[in-house]
Amino acid sequence: MKFELTILGSSSATPVFNRNPSAQLLNCNEKFYLIDCGEGTQQQLIKFGLKASKIDTIFISHLHGDHYFGLIGLISTMHLNGRIKPLYVYGPAALKDILDIQFKYSDTVLRFQLLFNPVVADEPRVIFQNQDVVVETIIMNHRIPCTGFKFSEKKRLRKVIADKLEEAGIAPEYYPLLKKGLDLTLPGGRFIKNSDYTVDSDAPKSYCYCSDTLADGSYLESLTNCTVLYHEATFLHELIERANTTHHSTALQAAEIAQEVGAGKLIIGHFSSRYKVLLPLLEEAKGKFHSTELALEGHTYSI
Amino acid sequence: MKFELTILGSSSATPVFNRNPSAQLLNCNEKFYLIDCGEGTQQQLIKFGLKASKIDTIFISHLHGDHYFGLIGLISTMHLNGRIKPLYVYGPAALKDILDIQFKYSDTVLRFQLLFNPVVADEPRVIFQNQDVVVETIIMNHRIPCTGFKFSEKKRLRKVIADKLEEAGIAPEYYPLLKKGLDLTLPGGRFIKNSDYTVDSDAPKSYCYCSDTLADGSYLESLTNCTVLYHEATFLHELIERANTTHHSTALQAAEIAQEVGAGKLIIGHFSSRYKVLLPLLEEAKGKFHSTELALEGHTYSI
Repeated sequence: MKFELTILGSSSATPVFNRNPSAQLLNCNEKFYLIDCGEGTQQQLIKFGLKASKIDTIFISHLHGDHYFGLIGLISTMHLNGRIKPLYVYGPAALKDILDIQFKYSDTVLRFQLLFNPVVADEPRVIFQNQDVVVETIIMNHRIPCTGFKFSEKKRLRKVIADKLEEAGIAPEYYPLLKKGLDLTLPGGRFIKNSDYTVDSDAPKSYCYCSDTLADGSYLESLTNCTVLYHEATFLHELIERANTTHHSTALQAAEIAQEVGAGKLIIGHFSSRYKVLLPLLEEAKGKFHSTELALEGHTYSI
Repeated sequence: MKFELTILGSSSATPVFNRNPSAQLLNCNEKFYLIDCGEGTQQQLIKFGLKASKIDTIFISHLHGDHYFGLIGLISTMHLNGRIKPLYVYGPAALKDILDIQFKYSDTVLRFQLLFNPVVADEPRVIFQNQDVVVETIIMNHRIPCTGFKFSEKKRLRKVIADKLEEAGIAPEYYPLLKKGLDLTLPGGRFIKNSDYTVDSDAPKSYCYCSDTLADGSYLESLTNCTVLYHEATFLHELIERANTTHHSTALQAAEIAQEVGAGKLIIGHFSSRYKVLLPLLEEAKGKFHSTELALEGHTYSI
């Protein structure tokens, strides 16, 4: 299935010229998930030719403004543009109060259902699943309750070896059962051993989003088998003390975590506004974990 | 004094490509006033090289999101950038609740004083003044309580006729009193008639901001002696019924109002997202009131 990530915002705390606060759009099998929604996310969607109307599910990591100030505007625009299908929002419980007070005073009654699901940042939990993906929280260590999110593909069906099945005269009507991994006994008693006619599918892929966190390793277990890891890298490692004080990570620490969990690829983002040029952050991370890329707004990364 | 307006946002309801929701920056004698603050206003300030730190006073017309969703982000950025001087905010009382709940859950204690002044949309009132300007509310007729704002220069001092004063041997120490319009009797009994030695200064200028309103003329009196009138013109007049239903104005109606109050210039804005090209709106307004301009983002208009 299609599984790709588009960066909409890569800045920490405040927007700076050409960088917007955190937001990412994940496409899993042509279903669109928005991860965080800093101010201006709807403008970024317009800029990159992405349709807000395609987003059905939104995950908000925590209630620092650079991760959610754009949500009320995005929802209002969906309403004004005539949306009728439901919108699912996952985030800290208080987010609902913040949205509701603004709907109240603008006298807005949404034309669609906003289905709000409070997320508790106490331990990793499955908070969402459909036929394509499972989403689990990752418990971050930040100044306020904060979760990351792990998106894992559902286990795929086995691949049938069509030539061999045809040669053996096994009718295509049995393929779906074989894809599911079943051994079969056909009418008449012929036994079909699944492993003779199918092979394992590719391993399910996963995308882990580590929003804002002290890089204390407390969440490493959640990153097991991570295909692509996004990890915040607010600072260069020379500012490790600042990172510790503010409960953020350095580029080097993000790389160490990617290495430790054996991630397939690392994307770093949430860059401090002090960095006009991002190359030193990339170089610092690549020195420890080669397969690192910068989160660049408008770029799409294959998972 | 310097008296000029920069448009930061000109779109109604939702942002569209290249147009952002309502926000304007007014420079009165190098003091900066922000009028409305739609989502992305802080990004617009960055884009146009304007410093958020220079803004000391913010006026919010009403609680539809396209006029204030950017406020919490702008204030947060001021905080994160180390602001210490106070910020004055004028707007509907509930705006304070909306800000406070977001500060609470992000665990933000502002390092500067946010001095909030609730504005009641019942009748025109003076809500602010300093040595440069007086600000009065204009009562709009919108779907929720809404005010516009009239910024009037303070009455200027009279101009002294320096040559004539010198010739008459009147010492410069008396000029400040003459500028204030006083007749003087000098020590020794010489009488100086003010009008012989001074002339009237230029008439004070004013800028009227009519945010969102049905163009029902109920607020015409507030627009007396308006030098520059900004009036919303959400629709072309062919959509007058839509304008009436949504309590908005057409370009033609904005022009009629400018004509009726004898404004020096009209700026139209708050354009519906349906208009990719704005020229028809301009032409419609100019047909009735020639001295009309479009509110174009990043453009500065002299008052």
